[in-house]
Amino acid sequence: MAQSMSDIFLSFQQYLETEQDLREEIRVVVRELEQTARGILTILQGIHQPDGLSKIPELCQKSKAAFANVKNQFQVLKSKVPENQYYRFHDHWRFVSQRLVFLAALTTYLESETLIQREEVAAMLGVCVDHNKGFHIDLDDYLSGLLMLADELSRFAVNSVTSGDYSWPLKISRFVTEMNLGFRLLNLKNDMLRKKFDALKYDLKKVEEVVYDLSIRGLKPSGDAQPPTDA
Amino acid sequence: MAQSMSDIFLSFQQYLETEQDLREEIRVVVRELEQTARGILTILQGIHQPDGLSKIPELCQKSKAAFANVKNQFQVLKSKVPENQYYRFHDHWRFVSQRLVFLAALTTYLESETLIQREEVAAMLGVCVDHNKGFHIDLDDYLSGLLMLADELSRFAVNSVTSGDYSWPLKISRFVTEMNLGFRLLNLKNDMLRKKFDALKYDLKKVEEVVYDLSIRGLKPSGDAQPPTDA
Amino acid sequence: MAQSMSDIFLSFQQYLETEQDLREEIRVVVRELEQTARGILTILQGIHQPDGLSKIPELCQKSKAAFANVKNQFQVLKSKVPENQYYRFHDHWRFVSQRLVFLAALTTYLESETLIQREEVAAMLGVCVDHNKGFHIDLDDYLSGLLMLADELSRFAVNSVTSGDYSWPLKISRFVTEMNLGFRLLNLKNDMLRKKFDALKYDLKKVEEVVYDLSIRGLKPSGDAQPPTDA
Amino acid sequence: MAQSMSDIFLSFQQYLETEQDLREEIRVVVRELEQTARGILTILQGIHQPDGLSKIPELCQKSKAAFANVKNQFQVLKSKVPENQYYRFHDHWRFVSQRLVFLAALTTYLESETLIQREEVAAMLGVCVDHNKGFHIDLDDYLSGLLMLADELSRFAVNSVTSGDYSWPLKISRFVTEMNLGFRLLNLKNDMLRKKFDALKYDLKKVEEVVYDLSIRGLKPSGDAQPPTDA
Repeated sequence: MAQSMSDIFLSFQQYLETEQDLREEIRVVVRELEQTARGILTILQGIHQPDGLSKIPELCQKSKAAFANVKNQFQVLKSKVPENQYYRFHDHWRFVSQRLVFLAALTTYLESETLIQREEVAAMLGVCVDHNKGFHIDLDDYLSGLLMLADELSRFAVNSVTSGDYSWPLKISRFVTEMNLGFRLLNLKNDMLRKKFDALKYDLKKVEEVVYDLSIRGLKPSGDAQPPTDA
Repeated sequence: MAQSMSDIFLSFQQYLETEQDLREEIRVVVRELEQTARGILTILQGIHQPDGLSKIPELCQKSKAAFANVKNQFQVLKSKVPENQYYRFHDHWRFVSQRLVFLAALTTYLESETLIQREEVAAMLGVCVDHNKGFHIDLDDYLSGLLMLADELSRFAVNSVTSGDYSWPLKISRFVTEMNLGFRLLNLKNDMLRKKFDALKYDLKKVEEVVYDLSIRGLKPSGDAQPPTDA
Repeated sequence: MAQSMSDIFLSFQQYLETEQDLREEIRVVVRELEQTARGILTILQGIHQPDGLSKIPELCQKSKAAFANVKNQFQVLKSKVPENQYYRFHDHWRFVSQRLVFLAALTTYLESETLIQREEVAAMLGVCVDHNKGFHIDLDDYLSGLLMLADELSRFAVNSVTSGDYSWPLKISRFVTEMNLGFRLLNLKNDMLRKKFDALKYDLKKVEEVVYDLSIRGLKPSGDAQPPTDA
Repeated sequence: MAQSMSDIFLSFQQYLETEQDLREEIRVVVRELEQTARGILTILQGIHQPDGLSKIPELCQKSKAAFANVKNQFQVLKSKVPENQYYRFHDHWRFVSQRLVFLAALTTYLESETLIQREEVAAMLGVCVDHNKGFHIDLDDYLSGLLMLADELSRFAVNSVTSGDYSWPLKISRFVTEMNLGFRLLNLKNDMLRKKFDALKYDLKKVEEVVYDLSIRGLKPSGDAQPPTDA
């Protein structure tokens, strides 16, 4: 039996090596995705610059162009991972997916002042939303990305005032308020996500303080800010 | 937009509730599997009793009969979990799977003194071995189950001597030695498994010490122990 | 053989004692370096004082004078540590090196509003930058020092306003923004460094909020702040 | 300045990538060394088999032949790592070095019943002992390897009795006793090593119990065992 037992274990070793090689290939593609995501973030950081507001349309165009690379890299990733093993390796690309949701959501918000839908993110990444069908954007990852967006928008509210624009803070305030109400509808079981959600209230407070500073100084634009949202 | 954003989040809440319900259903089935596994373990603990050795065939029969329930319960579990979401929920049944591998492996060893194959375990559980096809026994879980077997066999070697049988320790010594050599062929990356493997050498030493005690007292059966395995 | 084995171990004990003595000598020199670094920090803390801004040139002179001691102490350290054992004992002086990078970088920034180069730090410490040639400044340590600089500058931005100067916050905001963009180009594998980098965004936000406070009150100097950096 | 700061950071990124590539190359070679070490261990495990004692010369020959591969693989490793950066990357090969010291020490002990010298290990690995000259065997790693040897010999003492040989336990008892006395001469500062040394007393007790079992049954060989060591 000795011979055959060592044969059995040798076959396991082949199996383990194959898996380790696959993980290594996945890691390489994920690193490239991370590289692209860093590039997109650098583009969008331009909004915080003194002349950033006038460049928003241009920055969004550049961001969307870079998402074409993301799509290609996700295709490569999909080609590596068998469809029904998505969750086996999910941890490898979970974090970069959340970042990409954030970057897509920021781009969409800057362009249209709307919340990106999960389907829209999926389209930008070239994946689907249905967790029964291989590569997709998990709801948890989508929500994590939205919370990163709120953090970035609170910073943008501050910097847009510095750049002399007083309308963004009001728009952002309404948007983050609604997002906060939305999140409060959810019974979050995922501890990681719940912890990130706890930070949302600080983002909201920050934005509200900016609006307050504008109000108290009579700098609040009256036009589009007044019609209160019936949330 | 306020309305629509809250609509979006409400749909998420439905999704989250559906998922939480599914997890709860999975938990219920897994608890039943654990109950069955405890029952099989109780049956097989009979081997450590003073009269246990003579009852081995009977205990193995009972164990195998109980595995019919395991098979049924795995069918229920499979009906709950969409095929390509196996890895999404795998953590729920990972531990009970390892226990069942151990119990199946112990039954097989007691009956035929051989190592159970992964395919045989899968057949006893009514699942497959191919990780591309839904429910299966992961290699890591199979290997964890074998390490539990080595631990149980080191105990059995001690108790079989107490029961007056001096041949089991020698057979077990050869078996665990071969298993140890087998594991040494593997380059284990899984930290959990590697740690469990570290304990194997203590099981082996324990069994060797039992054989040593028999040898030094001239109690070692000469017959079947001598033909060396030439591993 | 007994005799010879104890002889062997006795020779090891001599070796271990020699090493422990060397480590003790290194510890003494490092403690002196830490003392000097504390002195320099105390000098530079003067910038946060109400009358600190006018004293910047004087504080920088004192700081640079004190760096002559640093250079001497590094010479002593170099004389203790064999060239190719730099990494064997590196942990002893790693932290003080990072502090010294920070202090050198702060001095340079206050004088010329520029980022100190790694070569310049090395020159101030009397070491080299090439990790193939004994004593040098590791890239990780240089980067850690820069992150300490960002933290200090966010505090300085606050205190310069308190001292009635409204131009430093804008200059610091531009500088830290660029540093942040620079760090984003790096794929940091060092966990310690990555964690420190995560804190940079809080420094940046702090500085941006100071600039915001000036803007909203119409206190932002228009002159040198306007020319955007086109990053 | 923006441009130049991003240039500086880009050059850092190149540097970091080069280092990461080097670490990856080192990892690959170390994995091959680990593979070879596992092979040697499997060979030497043969001594615990029922017919192992008669095969000792043959097993030692095979082990020494396999050490030729170790030497080659260490040459490859040396070619990757600049001489004075040995300690920068030492952690990568520290553990496999300790294992190889153990395997070399076991081979030497089985052949000549002597303690392998650090110089002899170094020769078998194709490195030097002088920590001033690039690749070498650190004293800590050498000592860790010896402690693994004591553990293995305590197991061998048990199994040699099972195989009917009563002289090995006495020889091993004298050897481990001397090693224990040797270690007691050392003032160990390395916590890892000190912890491993704590286990040596259990190995010694185990061996002493085997000798006791032989003595009390009148099985102790009188010839070569009597001349007590004047330790």
